[in-house]
Amino acid sequence: MNAEIVCVGTELLLGETLNTHGAFLSERLAAYGIDVYHHVTVGDNQGRLEDALRVASRRATLVVVTGGLGPTGDDLTREAIAAVTGRPLVLKEEVLAAIEQWFAERGRTMAPGNRKQALFPEGSHVLPNPNGTAPGFVLEWAPGRWFVALPGPPRELRPMVDGPLRPFLERWAGGRARLVKRVLRIAGLGESEVEDRLADLFARQGEVTMATYARAGEVHLRLATKASGAEASSRLDALAAEIRRRLGVHVYGEDDESLEAVVGRLLRERRESLAVAESCTGGRVADRLTNVPGSSEYFTAGVVAYANQAKVLSLAVSPHELTAHGAVSAQVARAMAAGVRRIYGTHWGLATTGIAGPGGGTPEKPVGTVYVAVEGPGVGRVERHRWRGDRDTVKERSAQAALFLLYRALSGQA
Amino acid sequence: MNAEIVCVGTELLLGETLNTHGAFLSERLAAYGIDVYHHVTVGDNQGRLEDALRVASRRATLVVVTGGLGPTGDDLTREAIAAVTGRPLVLKEEVLAAIEQWFAERGRTMAPGNRKQALFPEGSHVLPNPNGTAPGFVLEWAPGRWFVALPGPPRELRPMVDGPLRPFLERWAGGRARLVKRVLRIAGLGESEVEDRLADLFARQGEVTMATYARAGEVHLRLATKASGAEASSRLDALAAEIRRRLGVHVYGEDDESLEAVVGRLLRERRESLAVAESCTGGRVADRLTNVPGSSEYFTAGVVAYANQAKVLSLAVSPHELTAHGAVSAQVARAMAAGVRRIYGTHWGLATTGIAGPGGGTPEKPVGTVYVAVEGPGVGRVERHRWRGDRDTVKERSAQAALFLLYRALSGQA
Repeated sequence: MNAEIVCVGTELLLGETLNTHGAFLSERLAAYGIDVYHHVTVGDNQGRLEDALRVASRRATLVVVTGGLGPTGDDLTREAIAAVTGRPLVLKEEVLAAIEQWFAERGRTMAPGNRKQALFPEGSHVLPNPNGTAPGFVLEWAPGRWFVALPGPPRELRPMVDGPLRPFLERWAGGRARLVKRVLRIAGLGESEVEDRLADLFARQGEVTMATYARAGEVHLRLATKASGAEASSRLDALAAEIRRRLGVHVYGEDDESLEAVVGRLLRERRESLAVAESCTGGRVADRLTNVPGSSEYFTAGVVAYANQAKVLSLAVSPHELTAHGAVSAQVARAMAAGVRRIYGTHWGLATTGIAGPGGGTPEKPVGTVYVAVEGPGVGRVERHRWRGDRDTVKERSAQAALFLLYRALSGQA
Repeated sequence: MNAEIVCVGTELLLGETLNTHGAFLSERLAAYGIDVYHHVTVGDNQGRLEDALRVASRRATLVVVTGGLGPTGDDLTREAIAAVTGRPLVLKEEVLAAIEQWFAERGRTMAPGNRKQALFPEGSHVLPNPNGTAPGFVLEWAPGRWFVALPGPPRELRPMVDGPLRPFLERWAGGRARLVKRVLRIAGLGESEVEDRLADLFARQGEVTMATYARAGEVHLRLATKASGAEASSRLDALAAEIRRRLGVHVYGEDDESLEAVVGRLLRERRESLAVAESCTGGRVADRLTNVPGSSEYFTAGVVAYANQAKVLSLAVSPHELTAHGAVSAQVARAMAAGVRRIYGTHWGLATTGIAGPGGGTPEKPVGTVYVAVEGPGVGRVERHRWRGDRDTVKERSAQAALFLLYRALSGQA
């Protein structure tokens, strides 16, 4: 079985809406071992849509179509699939009743156009849509050859793929081995450094494939293998252990757990608290830490001390140190971390100070020069970094470096 | 002239990299009046790539290909275009010298594979790539029929489209009327409210088309018209003036200027300063304000007072008020804004307090209840909001509401 994804919508061809369906559906299909060879996007035009579906249905056994299931005259997907497969559209009374009820529950009257959302190519299996009026459908139009139609809005499509479409995905996957993945999240090393340190593993990858992805301030190393659950786990465990041995503290977590979530977990386990003093990151460290549900248990306070006056007033940095070393210095970074820790009475203090740019650089301290510091029980560390890139990049990298420094301190590896 | 975009890369078909080229290139082509009828994504497979290019070159006069220009054996775009057009690949010595120099400048030796990045289908015009080793090219392979090849990484592709490709886009646009756009940025109203208030304008849109786009905490209303510069400006000015008359203060800006940039511009014009006190937004207001270059001129400090103790200690909120009204209350929001303003001696103080969730809600103050307050010269205002959505949505909406409140106060419309 192999698949093609056809996305329908003129707005996608105008560049005003980013198409995320290709990536989402491909990732899900890959998990079931179904290869995808083509993504195609076409507008709300009957002729071009039918042509695209005809080509797709010839070269793929499974064609997933997104969009064009709405109530307007521009919504042509059901008509086009009917035309291409030669299946007439038939009305499903129970679906019509459900759509009428959807409107009634909201105190509205169903528009006449919505009636066509209860029409399906003969032989279709309906996929209910809990978040909208457009149901999807699955049609085996010839033996072993399938069309799937899903609505365009991602918040309608995604739950349908993970809900009512799932039994079909499992059926299509059949006995075929599923692709099982694990992502190792790596901080403090660039993509090429990761590849260099693991060069021999990359060269001889076999049952488990490896790929690196550069993400904001970190690298994601994806391990994937086609095998049943227990066999897959044991293969991934073995390789992950070898990679962790080579990269050490740089592998801070796995899969969807962000650096701020890992730091939060460690603080909660230790029943310790944290306060943050930020200059160049301007609140981004605090924002990331407080994105984690339950962070109020360990995050006490943050200070964004942008002006020197604020560093003195809120963090008890001495005016003498500011004058002697400058606001962007190791001494001031440490004083900020120690000051915020002392003032709020927390176990840990974390600080950033630097030049985010585009202005403010000097020959000794060019734009992108940043100090991050941590102070905690028996621990005091400061690091100097030099980032290249625009203001947002400097803020992002600096916030990441600060959180990674705290992570190492919390895990006894600073 | 009409165009098709072909994106090359197996990683796109695995769903591990989101394809943003379709949207970016379509938007740029639309600006030059060039219609796009298809986006196609295909893997690093010579047969399927050549098939896709053959089909595209039949149905579109301009085929833009992204990706597959790297130095490895998987990079097949130049070979495939050569095969489809019947043009042999020829080495451009000056490009080879430039690639060698690119490596020399970085103290590295050019790998043998990079040599093929200096090969181009005969008759190609080279598009230099200032951010990588893969140049692109433009080829008129038959009269009025074109291939464009661009590298896959967005930070390499985008500057090439806006730089060396631009003269070609202008040539292709020819005398054809360009699509001229203006975006009105609207805060404090939902998408359907905007559509309701402008219903008659939407109904009779003619030379200028209108479309709304829901963005994080705001609505973008896009006006577009096909006309020459002066005529387009006068059409857009007239409609924008009518919309501003109807929506008033809700239209806070145009095009790429964010709410935090508009607020910063107003503060700079008035030579006034700002300090921020955040609870539920956790630093996001400060982060957004400090994303604006030059914000250190007016942004003095921020306090993320997550714990009640921090609200007392850093913002001089009275323990009595916290006990009497609760941390999430109009009284505490106002006390936070007034406190941060007084402590840092700024002209303006801005504050947020609320329940971001998922925990912490009560029947009287459910998750999503948020107060935002502003204090300034002769101005004191507080607002209550109730957001629906997850933690990140509540933070984002609350930060937006706080900045919009400050915007109204600064423009004398609070």
